[in-house]
Amino acid sequence: MGENRAEIQRRMTEWRRDFHKYAESKWTEFRTAGKIAEYLTELGIPVLLGEELMEPDMGFGVPDMAVRRAEMERAIRQGADPDLVEKMNGLPGVAGIIDTGGEGPVTALRFDIDALPFAENDSPTHRPEREGFRSCNETGCHACGHDGHAAIGMAVAAWIMEHKEELCGTIKLIFQPAEEGGGGARGIVARGLLDDVEYFFAGHVGLTRPDGLPVESHQLVGGVRDFLDSRRYNVRYTGIAAHPCGDPQKGKNALLAASTAALGIHSIAPHSQGMFRANVGILRCGISRNTIAPNAYMEVEVRGENDVVAEYGEERMLQIVKSAAGLYDVEYEIELVGKTTSGAADDEAIALVMDCAKEVPWFEELIPIGSVGGSDDASDMLRRVQEHGGIGTYIGLGATFPTSFHDPAFDFDEEVLLPSAELFENIVKRIHGK
Amino acid sequence: MGENRAEIQRRMTEWRRDFHKYAESKWTEFRTAGKIAEYLTELGIPVLLGEELMEPDMGFGVPDMAVRRAEMERAIRQGADPDLVEKMNGLPGVAGIIDTGGEGPVTALRFDIDALPFAENDSPTHRPEREGFRSCNETGCHACGHDGHAAIGMAVAAWIMEHKEELCGTIKLIFQPAEEGGGGARGIVARGLLDDVEYFFAGHVGLTRPDGLPVESHQLVGGVRDFLDSRRYNVRYTGIAAHPCGDPQKGKNALLAASTAALGIHSIAPHSQGMFRANVGILRCGISRNTIAPNAYMEVEVRGENDVVAEYGEERMLQIVKSAAGLYDVEYEIELVGKTTSGAADDEAIALVMDCAKEVPWFEELIPIGSVGGSDDASDMLRRVQEHGGIGTYIGLGATFPTSFHDPAFDFDEEVLLPSAELFENIVKRIHGK
Amino acid sequence: MGENRAEIQRRMTEWRRDFHKYAESKWTEFRTAGKIAEYLTELGIPVLLGEELMEPDMGFGVPDMAVRRAEMERAIRQGADPDLVEKMNGLPGVAGIIDTGGEGPVTALRFDIDALPFAENDSPTHRPEREGFRSCNETGCHACGHDGHAAIGMAVAAWIMEHKEELCGTIKLIFQPAEEGGGGARGIVARGLLDDVEYFFAGHVGLTRPDGLPVESHQLVGGVRDFLDSRRYNVRYTGIAAHPCGDPQKGKNALLAASTAALGIHSIAPHSQGMFRANVGILRCGISRNTIAPNAYMEVEVRGENDVVAEYGEERMLQIVKSAAGLYDVEYEIELVGKTTSGAADDEAIALVMDCAKEVPWFEELIPIGSVGGSDDASDMLRRVQEHGGIGTYIGLGATFPTSFHDPAFDFDEEVLLPSAELFENIVKRIHGK
Amino acid sequence: MGENRAEIQRRMTEWRRDFHKYAESKWTEFRTAGKIAEYLTELGIPVLLGEELMEPDMGFGVPDMAVRRAEMERAIRQGADPDLVEKMNGLPGVAGIIDTGGEGPVTALRFDIDALPFAENDSPTHRPEREGFRSCNETGCHACGHDGHAAIGMAVAAWIMEHKEELCGTIKLIFQPAEEGGGGARGIVARGLLDDVEYFFAGHVGLTRPDGLPVESHQLVGGVRDFLDSRRYNVRYTGIAAHPCGDPQKGKNALLAASTAALGIHSIAPHSQGMFRANVGILRCGISRNTIAPNAYMEVEVRGENDVVAEYGEERMLQIVKSAAGLYDVEYEIELVGKTTSGAADDEAIALVMDCAKEVPWFEELIPIGSVGGSDDASDMLRRVQEHGGIGTYIGLGATFPTSFHDPAFDFDEEVLLPSAELFENIVKRIHGK
Repeated sequence: MGENRAEIQRRMTEWRRDFHKYAESKWTEFRTAGKIAEYLTELGIPVLLGEELMEPDMGFGVPDMAVRRAEMERAIRQGADPDLVEKMNGLPGVAGIIDTGGEGPVTALRFDIDALPFAENDSPTHRPEREGFRSCNETGCHACGHDGHAAIGMAVAAWIMEHKEELCGTIKLIFQPAEEGGGGARGIVARGLLDDVEYFFAGHVGLTRPDGLPVESHQLVGGVRDFLDSRRYNVRYTGIAAHPCGDPQKGKNALLAASTAALGIHSIAPHSQGMFRANVGILRCGISRNTIAPNAYMEVEVRGENDVVAEYGEERMLQIVKSAAGLYDVEYEIELVGKTTSGAADDEAIALVMDCAKEVPWFEELIPIGSVGGSDDASDMLRRVQEHGGIGTYIGLGATFPTSFHDPAFDFDEEVLLPSAELFENIVKRIHGK
Repeated sequence: MGENRAEIQRRMTEWRRDFHKYAESKWTEFRTAGKIAEYLTELGIPVLLGEELMEPDMGFGVPDMAVRRAEMERAIRQGADPDLVEKMNGLPGVAGIIDTGGEGPVTALRFDIDALPFAENDSPTHRPEREGFRSCNETGCHACGHDGHAAIGMAVAAWIMEHKEELCGTIKLIFQPAEEGGGGARGIVARGLLDDVEYFFAGHVGLTRPDGLPVESHQLVGGVRDFLDSRRYNVRYTGIAAHPCGDPQKGKNALLAASTAALGIHSIAPHSQGMFRANVGILRCGISRNTIAPNAYMEVEVRGENDVVAEYGEERMLQIVKSAAGLYDVEYEIELVGKTTSGAADDEAIALVMDCAKEVPWFEELIPIGSVGGSDDASDMLRRVQEHGGIGTYIGLGATFPTSFHDPAFDFDEEVLLPSAELFENIVKRIHGK
Repeated sequence: MGENRAEIQRRMTEWRRDFHKYAESKWTEFRTAGKIAEYLTELGIPVLLGEELMEPDMGFGVPDMAVRRAEMERAIRQGADPDLVEKMNGLPGVAGIIDTGGEGPVTALRFDIDALPFAENDSPTHRPEREGFRSCNETGCHACGHDGHAAIGMAVAAWIMEHKEELCGTIKLIFQPAEEGGGGARGIVARGLLDDVEYFFAGHVGLTRPDGLPVESHQLVGGVRDFLDSRRYNVRYTGIAAHPCGDPQKGKNALLAASTAALGIHSIAPHSQGMFRANVGILRCGISRNTIAPNAYMEVEVRGENDVVAEYGEERMLQIVKSAAGLYDVEYEIELVGKTTSGAADDEAIALVMDCAKEVPWFEELIPIGSVGGSDDASDMLRRVQEHGGIGTYIGLGATFPTSFHDPAFDFDEEVLLPSAELFENIVKRIHGK
Repeated sequence: MGENRAEIQRRMTEWRRDFHKYAESKWTEFRTAGKIAEYLTELGIPVLLGEELMEPDMGFGVPDMAVRRAEMERAIRQGADPDLVEKMNGLPGVAGIIDTGGEGPVTALRFDIDALPFAENDSPTHRPEREGFRSCNETGCHACGHDGHAAIGMAVAAWIMEHKEELCGTIKLIFQPAEEGGGGARGIVARGLLDDVEYFFAGHVGLTRPDGLPVESHQLVGGVRDFLDSRRYNVRYTGIAAHPCGDPQKGKNALLAASTAALGIHSIAPHSQGMFRANVGILRCGISRNTIAPNAYMEVEVRGENDVVAEYGEERMLQIVKSAAGLYDVEYEIELVGKTTSGAADDEAIALVMDCAKEVPWFEELIPIGSVGGSDDASDMLRRVQEHGGIGTYIGLGATFPTSFHDPAFDFDEEVLLPSAELFENIVKRIHGK
């Protein structure tokens, strides 16, 4: 190792906090991707950007190009390299392709880089606020640890370039945008980046142990088998506005229709063939206090441990959305805005991770199988690799955190950063070592 | 009359459409009030502005001064006189005080001038859109006809000044802001403007007949007795955000608490001692699709035909808001943001209106008592006048309209404007004629 | 008067308490009708029973003949005359037709005699329990005062027979069954009993004053104009039973469909054209704790001050019932089981009552117009009389009571009995006096 | 084997159909237990009845002794031996204790015998109806296959007695009442019957495979690890009755409180540490259509894969029940009426079952671990055996069935009966063979 571990940990923390401060939600990660691309380029790694990286028009919830251009300008104002951002041309994200020169296998490592679309907690007890790296973007909050994932990927890139002579084959480092409901993996898969990949690894800080408890610092999960099949919908109810005293009977109350739908969706019965989850995350209704609400907007997600369960939940949800409209005699529109497949890690890949983790002393407790507790479109990449005969897994990088995921006050134990990079490095050494 | 009726009608329509286009919701009516003040001044009428007009700190939902200063600047950009706006000093509205010189009674005519706080309908079938006077302010929509009220008041002002020699006593023309939930009348009452008033008249386009049908063009209602007692509250629920798959049990779902409260409030049982009305007009919940919603905001209004009914509804509403928090184990805050008294017109004032209306041929059908179908803080002014021994009424100026009140596509038959001004003129003549 | 007032009051109280103790709900009033018929016969009044009194098959919620035969046997066991009960032949109720011999007008006085279908309160603080006249029938409770109405009718019958010589014309005393949701008036109207009636009077203890307060002892209401149009429905939801752990997704939950419908029906918006009322009074769902409920049964009533409002409520209710089925993917059946028309008393009849009441000193406060606060199928009889050119009214006989109507602990001030009979006697004297 | 297999199968079917026809729900199984006790006695097996079998006062939902005495009389009328029923003295169930004479291990086989408390489906397509063995008891329906379990236990008893000479040790055949929510196992455990048991086996027709599909005919599940921790509650809401038109504001609506609670309980969020299930199975509200419902009764069950999850669900449920009362300002009472522990089969016992099943050719597919998909108080017995160092399992006896469990139209493939008995016989032979 060309420099001491403390220095690397320091630098990773710096990167993580920089990404945290300029948190960018799905399809706006131009600064984050720009900073990474700049570093990869400095390291001498060829990068793929824009349509080289992904097919356009495959994502969900992609804002209009005008909005994305404004975000590109913001990214530049916030320090991104203008040329690199320009090359993205509205499609954030970056991949570094390291061809070692020697014949050998093809491995892809995937790091997701997007934040959640809400403002970060500003309480003085929240470390990012206290230590000055709270997000300055009102619509971005790293409440899922992807800032750390990006930092890990950058450290791995540096290590590979330092040890390139000892390695053979090709390593692809994919810094993916829009994991949080944006289907960022889809365009990359469609572009063919995973088609020749034999080994696929992705990781996530935290995750869940088999007993339902979080994976804490010093623990590691080798893989998960419960990527949920997820379907995301936006719903709009349109009623008729009316004065609630003068003409109450003329109103068609979209607010009550949406409230009923939300309660109904959260009461969908579970399924015996696997875990089922539903959430109404957003509800926006009404135009003024003193008007029967003619409009309602709702964001919904249903997920199942497999296709059967997800389809059951989707069908029930659609019935509820429709019938709640009938209850209050309002119109409705519903739009599919996202979809992720289910999936499972391969035993062989899990075993390889467990072996490699033994050499990283920070990970004291190694748990073969854990739970992703949701969905991650790493499953879309993994599925493509498996279809072509490759193997892969999704690793739980234990890191204690004070809240739930997706809480505006989320933070995590930054000690996990360096050991996580070392684990990925060991994996690369094992597969690609000459 | 110094010019022909068609010309006056044309000018009133122009005024009304101008106010409509630059619609300003409660506590931002700086342009509307500025234009009216400018006209009154041109007519030679002394005006009261700012703290001359009203006590500050009496309104509900008054934005911060910084916001109001920004709105004052907007008003100036949209054509208001900078000096007049400056004199308002954050308190929109204007009163013109016409002292005829001769001894005589004191009459107040009240015209409300604010719009509703939402965007206007932009369908090509909506006349304001088609004919180019749709509101250019996204947060203002004249969906209750106050643009017309302002125009009527201006025409009456001109007529009085033309006939000043024939009149005695004092006439106060009050152009009131913030009728829609802002308690605009309260500060004016507190300043004492109504304390010496012997006759009080206000009017509203439309209103409701005793049989529940709208008061159409060519009909007139002499007074109402059903001003509702209204209490307005804002509610905030605070739960805990969590990943709906990974940690569902850690979430405290504020969205479901608010949905339950909304349904509960709309199911409060009626009351045998008078009309009861409740409305949840605004609901805003959640931070992202894939997060259990930790926050909810709700705007509520309960009204009763009298104190007993309104207090019953208020108490039930408070129970529901609190218990819905308990159902989902979330915290809540509730804040009183508005209050209007109940009230009733005086028989003598109604009789006077009926008499005066007979001389306006456009009003073909005269109905003594109608219904306001809600609340109007004209009742606060009327109550003060009655407390000092005066009398007053609230007139329904029949005008056919295509939607319900408060619908973003509201419009009304502009033919009502001139006859309405003539009615007020007759009233003034009857009371103040030498 | 042939005996002193105290004695009459004593006897009326005795009758009332006897009917109270053997309370019989709709279409089972064989003992009550039998006892009345026996007394009328003793007085020498010809009675109409069974199909002489009413068309069969016109009522709502009439039990099977087998059930009614069992109730007839019960009535006989509880002291009714077997021959009279037999003549009823499954159709309870009785009318006494007093032809005075002399030419003159035709008047009908209507007294309803049925109880509510639930068990009476058995608290020691409840007077009927304390004084030993609590209902011994589990499915009958006089929680609406009809026991008193029957007693008043019997006293009036006795008085008329005592004073027959001083009277002319015909007086029909109709003791009607099944007022509470059974449509008992319909068959009597259909039989033609009201076709020649010129004056119609019915009364009810209690009722409501114009200000919404109850009509207390010593007060009298001359008439009402707010008979509500009522429509009654039974709803059945049929889902699919399933084990809630083993097969939750296979269940179709009728219990949740019905719960949603109940909440929805109670949240139907009010109507500007008149009072609207809805109630889900009965809900019965499920087959065992540990089974997803495949069945639900619901009894609903919607009422409006007029046809427009009632039809609005009925339409909204039907939408809600249907859509709630959709929400939980269950089947539903809905059946109309009752209907009562709206109606209003005639001014002339009210004036006559006010005049006659002045001669009854117990009634100290006379209020011309009150509120029935619901529906009463006296309106069906009144409407028929009005259609033939007759007039009528529905009198509020002030009587203080400790609970709401329809509360299992209902009771009323028995002092009202004698003055009420005297009022009816005065009315008869005024119309039929020679 | 002393007679041919077809004959045994015929006899088992006969027994099963006899129990099916006279289905008895929890704590009323006097006829079923009586018939079994009679047979065991005929075979020469000493039986334990009444307080010999179980501690009294340990069950949940045990009816009053008067009710049980009436059920004992009914059982006798339906063919049970009066002396045996008398010995039960209100505590149904029976155990046969076979002491082979030779020293050896102690094994308990448990067969539950109770039905569900509802009427059976009477459609002509339902085999029990078509073939004449539909339940004649309106409050009993064998919708969970316990009729088959009883028949299996009887066949095993006969086989053991035929082969007693070849066996050593003690075999206890426990025919347990009140598995369905009655806590029937508790009193038997408390009496000490399991205290010396080394091997414990129970079985259930059907069950669920690891993939969530039902265990069909010719399949076998060796054990389950997901006995749910179950807590059962009854809830009563008490409001105030009122006339929904005359006094709506005086009512306190218990029906709406219960409806809200039911919807709330079905919307309790899932838990990441294991399966969570909730069900409101029974809802009964109201006294008449035209009365605001003053009463509601609700039966609830919450279950979790472990204590943590069950306690979470219980706590949420209690919050909801309480807060729903607050929403409608009604009183509530809640009573714990049942509790079952979680549990898991032992690997060694599962392996033994798998081995023994290989010798029963009808079972073609052997699955080591399945799912009970709920709770069964066999877990209470198993836990006691494990506490004393013994082992045990709960076997899934594959049997295709046309509906879900607990559906009034439940039936199962009777072919499973004989192979199931043979499996238990193999197990006994393996453990107790000399």
